[in-house]
Amino acid sequence: MKINGSRMLERLDRLAQIGAAPAGGVTRLALTDDDTKARRLVIGWAQARGFVPHVDPVGNVFLRRVGTDANAPPVITGSHLDTQISGGNLDGIYGVLAGLEVVESLEDSNQRTRHPIDVVIWNNEEGVRFAPVTMGSSVYGGTLDLQQVLEHRDADGVSVRSALHDSGLLEELRPRRLGERFHASVELHIEQGPVLEQAGRRIGVVTAVQGVRQFEFVVSGEAAHAGTTPRAMRRDAFVTAVQLYQRLAEMADAGGPDLRFTVGRMQVYPGAPNTVPSRVSFTVDLRHPDAAELAARAAAIASIVDQEFQKSCAVRALIDSPPVTFDAKIVDLIHAQARDLQLDGMPMVSGATHDSARIAHLGPTAMIFVPSRDGISHNPREWTAPDQLVTGCELLGNTLEQLAG
Amino acid sequence: MKINGSRMLERLDRLAQIGAAPAGGVTRLALTDDDTKARRLVIGWAQARGFVPHVDPVGNVFLRRVGTDANAPPVITGSHLDTQISGGNLDGIYGVLAGLEVVESLEDSNQRTRHPIDVVIWNNEEGVRFAPVTMGSSVYGGTLDLQQVLEHRDADGVSVRSALHDSGLLEELRPRRLGERFHASVELHIEQGPVLEQAGRRIGVVTAVQGVRQFEFVVSGEAAHAGTTPRAMRRDAFVTAVQLYQRLAEMADAGGPDLRFTVGRMQVYPGAPNTVPSRVSFTVDLRHPDAAELAARAAAIASIVDQEFQKSCAVRALIDSPPVTFDAKIVDLIHAQARDLQLDGMPMVSGATHDSARIAHLGPTAMIFVPSRDGISHNPREWTAPDQLVTGCELLGNTLEQLAG
Repeated sequence: MKINGSRMLERLDRLAQIGAAPAGGVTRLALTDDDTKARRLVIGWAQARGFVPHVDPVGNVFLRRVGTDANAPPVITGSHLDTQISGGNLDGIYGVLAGLEVVESLEDSNQRTRHPIDVVIWNNEEGVRFAPVTMGSSVYGGTLDLQQVLEHRDADGVSVRSALHDSGLLEELRPRRLGERFHASVELHIEQGPVLEQAGRRIGVVTAVQGVRQFEFVVSGEAAHAGTTPRAMRRDAFVTAVQLYQRLAEMADAGGPDLRFTVGRMQVYPGAPNTVPSRVSFTVDLRHPDAAELAARAAAIASIVDQEFQKSCAVRALIDSPPVTFDAKIVDLIHAQARDLQLDGMPMVSGATHDSARIAHLGPTAMIFVPSRDGISHNPREWTAPDQLVTGCELLGNTLEQLAG
Repeated sequence: MKINGSRMLERLDRLAQIGAAPAGGVTRLALTDDDTKARRLVIGWAQARGFVPHVDPVGNVFLRRVGTDANAPPVITGSHLDTQISGGNLDGIYGVLAGLEVVESLEDSNQRTRHPIDVVIWNNEEGVRFAPVTMGSSVYGGTLDLQQVLEHRDADGVSVRSALHDSGLLEELRPRRLGERFHASVELHIEQGPVLEQAGRRIGVVTAVQGVRQFEFVVSGEAAHAGTTPRAMRRDAFVTAVQLYQRLAEMADAGGPDLRFTVGRMQVYPGAPNTVPSRVSFTVDLRHPDAAELAARAAAIASIVDQEFQKSCAVRALIDSPPVTFDAKIVDLIHAQARDLQLDGMPMVSGATHDSARIAHLGPTAMIFVPSRDGISHNPREWTAPDQLVTGCELLGNTLEQLAG
């Protein structure tokens, strides 16, 4: 099928201006005014073509192009519009706009499909303002409870419920139920890693999403005056936190190349240069494609804390998201459609988690990746060549066309 | 001389209520409303006894009890009323209230002195809200420039000039010039360290203040998605920052027991659990009583950064305060007065810096320490036994009486 690549690329530029950060990149956290502005812009584009926007109780938006069979379940595509702090302008956004481009292209050529096609804007995939990541798709898929999530609060104490209300979308759009099954789902996304680029491939066909375990450690010590207390007499929470970090990093070093281990946040209290820290908190993000291996590493972390840092450290789980395997038939279909476009799709496991992993039990699901330059994402330098973006969109279009019948 | 110990202890309790932190301790940062409230309370007590408050252009307050010789330079005593975040209720405050107690006791017994006695409230000793520490006394002593300091800003962008204006004190009190020389200066303070307690001594006679060098390191990396980027391909600012910290800590380990080395603040950006950090800043506070040794350790730090972290790390100096040796005659006088009280004063070097170190070139200066339980300060658990506080005040009184003639 023929898509309008320049229309999609122009819209990516438009979206990049909403929440543009002074130092480059985009900061558009979920359910902020900028996020709602971006959603309204995309909803407006869909409505102009006669697609009907729906919203579910957690704020996921579904832009429906109806099919010829009123009883046929939908084919789903899409991703998210929220970003990291100083994130890129493709992560998530590309998947939404490519999905919209596919249904608009079908509309342009007056081509009907049997199944309806829903372009989804999942709410709060990034989990920066409100924990956790993939919040909207997790509630849709039932792994998170709606009422509990509505009470999650941001750093200023604003609840999801309140922020959703302020967006106005729940009142304005038609309601959609949570957890509705679908005929098929395909999400198009940038890889956010270096594998495709290094292999010189244009398309990744995602067979699985690796599992994520996230922890927060709180290390306790005792504040003291930096000038008067000999180091041997201190209970310095920072010194202990670094010791704990070193032990965890050794564990990660032993975990092989497939293990991902990241400390992305550390906070030191009280935080005065001349005061020995009384408390340090930090996060560990741990990922592996194999469920048993991931569980073993999480157990190793628990063991290190229990045996070596029991008195000084408390740990709690932030995220426990097992690996997800995608539907083999959809994966095969994407490979076949790629070959039709003279492309050699590369089978791969996603290093990042995605909304698709949260809904894959509701219907056959898979994902398509395009390369990320230098493997960079969650960064203003996130970039994919325009022709690669257009190619990905074409492959998505052909795949959805086959699935929607 | 006879002092009114219970009056002083009651006033310490009163001051502890201004800025009392919910979790215990006191948070009364310089030139906040609470700090001004505390100063006004003490100024009021002084005025009720006929002492005349003056203020210099950087906000140091001098409560003068006049002497019999109108031309005699003042004897100075006092300390500061500002605190750390969740600091104690003795650090600084004790020195101010003990000084006030001495002049009030002289007043109670109608005892005149030849020299006037000024009880000083130095502005912003802690340096938490506005950098640097000992701000007021440094400007008074001339090691910091008044006009530059007035432009220093807190985290909210409020300048010292603006905060001083808001306090109203500059307009209300009589003006005092910066840098006026004095006949003698004695500051009474809690030790803030464990030495006196462990030695079983009640009085420390401070012969010197150790030098302080403070640095801020900014380590640069590159933000990346925590799930997709193999660890070998990352430029993780946190990993580099920990490596740098380890090298600095090794240097500190080799520096002997007199070296103090503290990382009191670390900030990780962007600070999301699932993003590889792009930037980490942290402070190092380095102290030693020997100027040559301190300089050697600072040079070692510069060398580590230059040779091993040149591409990833920038470093800037926050504080460079050389060791200060106090006046031998005043030190001897304090020892003699201690013996008169049946006390065996312990000669010691101060681990903390103090306002006295910033003004010691303007006249003969020394300090008196009383013990700190468990050596704890900058902490809600900071505590000194009431009888030890009263003993310290008596020794201060006898010493000032001798000096003021």
